[in-house]
Amino acid sequence: MQIMYGDEAPITAFATTPGNSAITLIRCSGKNSIEMVSSVFSSDKIKDAQGNSVVYGWITGNEKTVIANMTGGTEVPSASKIDEVLISVFRAPKSYTGEDSLDICCHGGNAAGKAVMDALKSAGFRDALPGEFTFRAFMNGKLDLTQCESVMELVSAKTETGRSHAVSRLSGALQNEINEIKQLLIQVLASAEIYLDYSEDEIGPALDSSIMDSSIMDASILGGTAGKLPNQEIALTALSRLKKLSASWQLERIYQEGVTIVIAGRPNAGKSSLFNLLLKEDRSIVTPIPGTTRDWIEAWVSIEGIPIRLVDTAGLRESADSVEKIGVERSLKLLEEAEVVLYLIDGQQGVTAEDRDFLERYAIYSVPGQSTTLPKSGINYLWSKSDLSLPPLPFPIKGVSPICVSAKANNGIEELYSVIIKEILRQTTIDVQLQDFTAGLGTIRQKNLVDNACAALEDALSLADSGEPLDLIAPLLRDAVNSLGEITGEVSTADIIEEMFSKFCVGK
Amino acid sequence: MQIMYGDEAPITAFATTPGNSAITLIRCSGKNSIEMVSSVFSSDKIKDAQGNSVVYGWITGNEKTVIANMTGGTEVPSASKIDEVLISVFRAPKSYTGEDSLDICCHGGNAAGKAVMDALKSAGFRDALPGEFTFRAFMNGKLDLTQCESVMELVSAKTETGRSHAVSRLSGALQNEINEIKQLLIQVLASAEIYLDYSEDEIGPALDSSIMDSSIMDASILGGTAGKLPNQEIALTALSRLKKLSASWQLERIYQEGVTIVIAGRPNAGKSSLFNLLLKEDRSIVTPIPGTTRDWIEAWVSIEGIPIRLVDTAGLRESADSVEKIGVERSLKLLEEAEVVLYLIDGQQGVTAEDRDFLERYAIYSVPGQSTTLPKSGINYLWSKSDLSLPPLPFPIKGVSPICVSAKANNGIEELYSVIIKEILRQTTIDVQLQDFTAGLGTIRQKNLVDNACAALEDALSLADSGEPLDLIAPLLRDAVNSLGEITGEVSTADIIEEMFSKFCVGK
Repeated sequence: MQIMYGDEAPITAFATTPGNSAITLIRCSGKNSIEMVSSVFSSDKIKDAQGNSVVYGWITGNEKTVIANMTGGTEVPSASKIDEVLISVFRAPKSYTGEDSLDICCHGGNAAGKAVMDALKSAGFRDALPGEFTFRAFMNGKLDLTQCESVMELVSAKTETGRSHAVSRLSGALQNEINEIKQLLIQVLASAEIYLDYSEDEIGPALDSSIMDSSIMDASILGGTAGKLPNQEIALTALSRLKKLSASWQLERIYQEGVTIVIAGRPNAGKSSLFNLLLKEDRSIVTPIPGTTRDWIEAWVSIEGIPIRLVDTAGLRESADSVEKIGVERSLKLLEEAEVVLYLIDGQQGVTAEDRDFLERYAIYSVPGQSTTLPKSGINYLWSKSDLSLPPLPFPIKGVSPICVSAKANNGIEELYSVIIKEILRQTTIDVQLQDFTAGLGTIRQKNLVDNACAALEDALSLADSGEPLDLIAPLLRDAVNSLGEITGEVSTADIIEEMFSKFCVGK
Repeated sequence: MQIMYGDEAPITAFATTPGNSAITLIRCSGKNSIEMVSSVFSSDKIKDAQGNSVVYGWITGNEKTVIANMTGGTEVPSASKIDEVLISVFRAPKSYTGEDSLDICCHGGNAAGKAVMDALKSAGFRDALPGEFTFRAFMNGKLDLTQCESVMELVSAKTETGRSHAVSRLSGALQNEINEIKQLLIQVLASAEIYLDYSEDEIGPALDSSIMDSSIMDASILGGTAGKLPNQEIALTALSRLKKLSASWQLERIYQEGVTIVIAGRPNAGKSSLFNLLLKEDRSIVTPIPGTTRDWIEAWVSIEGIPIRLVDTAGLRESADSVEKIGVERSLKLLEEAEVVLYLIDGQQGVTAEDRDFLERYAIYSVPGQSTTLPKSGINYLWSKSDLSLPPLPFPIKGVSPICVSAKANNGIEELYSVIIKEILRQTTIDVQLQDFTAGLGTIRQKNLVDNACAALEDALSLADSGEPLDLIAPLLRDAVNSLGEITGEVSTADIIEEMFSKFCVGK
């Protein structure tokens, strides 16, 4: 029998990464979960434990050997002790999932948590599906879908900025914005439906004035001539807020997924020095990743809160050596994937034929008489070793002058950062300062639904503008409202939700 | 100022391995730790929280912006929210450390835990030293030293058996055994000291009969002739229990550190198939470790609860290829490190010249007329591909016949396991069945102190036997008692304890 989301079965999962840590945390949730843990626990204290209390004791083998002792009580023999634990007990509905649930703090390492997990399985728990705890939190009304999604976002946040945006959504900022916009659209929809239900002469002061405002009285729309929606101003406000949300995803995605920056240049142009300097400068390095081949190395750094996959490529040089040739080819492939390329020119040597060669290949070396086309990825010229070199020679690319950097003297890094951020923003269509940006969309699912709502609302406005009747327009408004309801999970199908939660990690 | 163990400062550490997990657990302990966490928490609930209770809320920025709201209360603006957490509050002395302490369950991943940790630092917590939580538990009398050591042992246990032995010591099994032996020695010591304090004619019925038993009345010892210690039988019982404990370390060390088994043989003898079979057979694989070079691969498996570092070497073969030569040399070096070598002979080809070559090098190929000397590492001959091959040819090694294995037909594995266990036990001096073995020593520190106690007690017995006076013997008995006190931490110096705890992991 396939296990499905949506039952109340007692589930369990490791909530922490196994390893050589002090503690391993195991989560349990579901119907009878407290009784079931009690069956493998050294005392009955858990059964009577209040919600939000912590109980100390031992996880024991499933078969308790009951020995009558002197005082008539029972004892669990020491041999069946599995691990000494602290168990936090939560009682429905005051828990993450909204069900009875328990967090078991075992000793860390590989063996203890595994043995406790085996005991829980023998007591009747099954493995939780990915995201099943959060799924239950959603089903029990503890979190809406935007908050559920922000939980996963928070766990995988790469930078401090990514974390704070996720936290804002977890606090309900996005949920509130979506619900406010939805309320505006419902207002418009309600007005439209009133016009459908009542003919002109029936509309009178008996109608609820909160739904009906003066704009509804614009008779032109009823006459079938070009005109406005009822509550057109409100619809336009909603549209503008939806568009802002939709645009936000461009930046949010960058904060979540990051940007690839490739450092390129001839051998000995100073690439590795710059790579190491950017690593050292950044105090919030997330995870250095050893290169998968000897051809390049990479690491994640954070620049203004944006996760940057920084790649140091092999030197670009025509070579007879077949191994080196492969390295150069791989470097060129990385250049194509990159959002930003930092091309280093050796300041001591100036622009060489090889540099010109590279720049021509990337169509940014302006041949006199031809127009310069910038490539998809922004290529930025760096004049390295600026502490030792002459001032940069005038560089024959229209409007682009090299940034002078010296890894040794630690010069030019601030300017480099600002050029990088400018380049990243240039590739989006939004005109916000990073600092101004606080709330936005967290997932592509949300983005698609906001875009659906936008499209339906724009269609409705356009139909109204062409004087089409309200009975054609109202369904579009209803679609827009439903799309927004789907974002928060008010309107949704089991399939969509299962698809969404199955992407979560287990234990969440 | 150097930070030292032994203050009450509020300390904090990650108790779980950071990574893409659902939860990150941060521990806090020390004086005012509850107030300090409260300063970065969204409500005052923590300050008033009872011990062993769980509080839900948000970790916030250190500077709370206090806004008077409509109801006269205060609010923390959403922007300063750092992470949504569950905090378990423990009040002294009912906590792991015996101090006020808190376990903070943050969201997993890299960013959330890090941000919460930063907030705790800004609130005044310092990083915990390695093992500092357990150190405080010891200082506050929550655990004795054998239990402290078993905590680390439990965290690093590689197999289920390793875990259960650690749990037994954590439950106090070793502490009890040490204390019982110590009581025996104190009884002997007390008797001896009574003889020192009172001359023969003073000893009378006034003395406490629990200290004085009939054996004390053996006058021979007082006369300086060859004789017995007072309570000699008790001393001998103590000695026998100490020796049993000391011997236990040989096996306990194997359970903790494991044994290296190297699979060797000519190329295509079936080494990789056997390696994979042993990996597959073992349901309790701990961690597969990718080989550090292409020359061999290794993985940890468990055989009868013993952690086995299983190494599959490159084929042993004379080679002109310099790279392959290095591989063969590395294989030979691994053979020297191994406790057990499994040498595979290709059952289809029989014993080849190269096989004889290898066996001669390891001095186990019996040349007629010369005696066979087994090497330090036990080499066992496996006749591979037994499903395809003829029965093994009589093999010219005295007393050793090859084990027939077939990875394909899954034959001979049970026999191989028993040979491996026999070989491991052969290298110890203890004659116990693995199954009989329940309690024992957990660390080399404990072993050395037990050996000290043994040596002192044996000296005392030997002096008594030579009729030396009790004033020479009593100090030896006192040494033995002190050594045992040092094991549990009753007698110890700050230096020794700091040295011990500094080997712990941080967060424990």
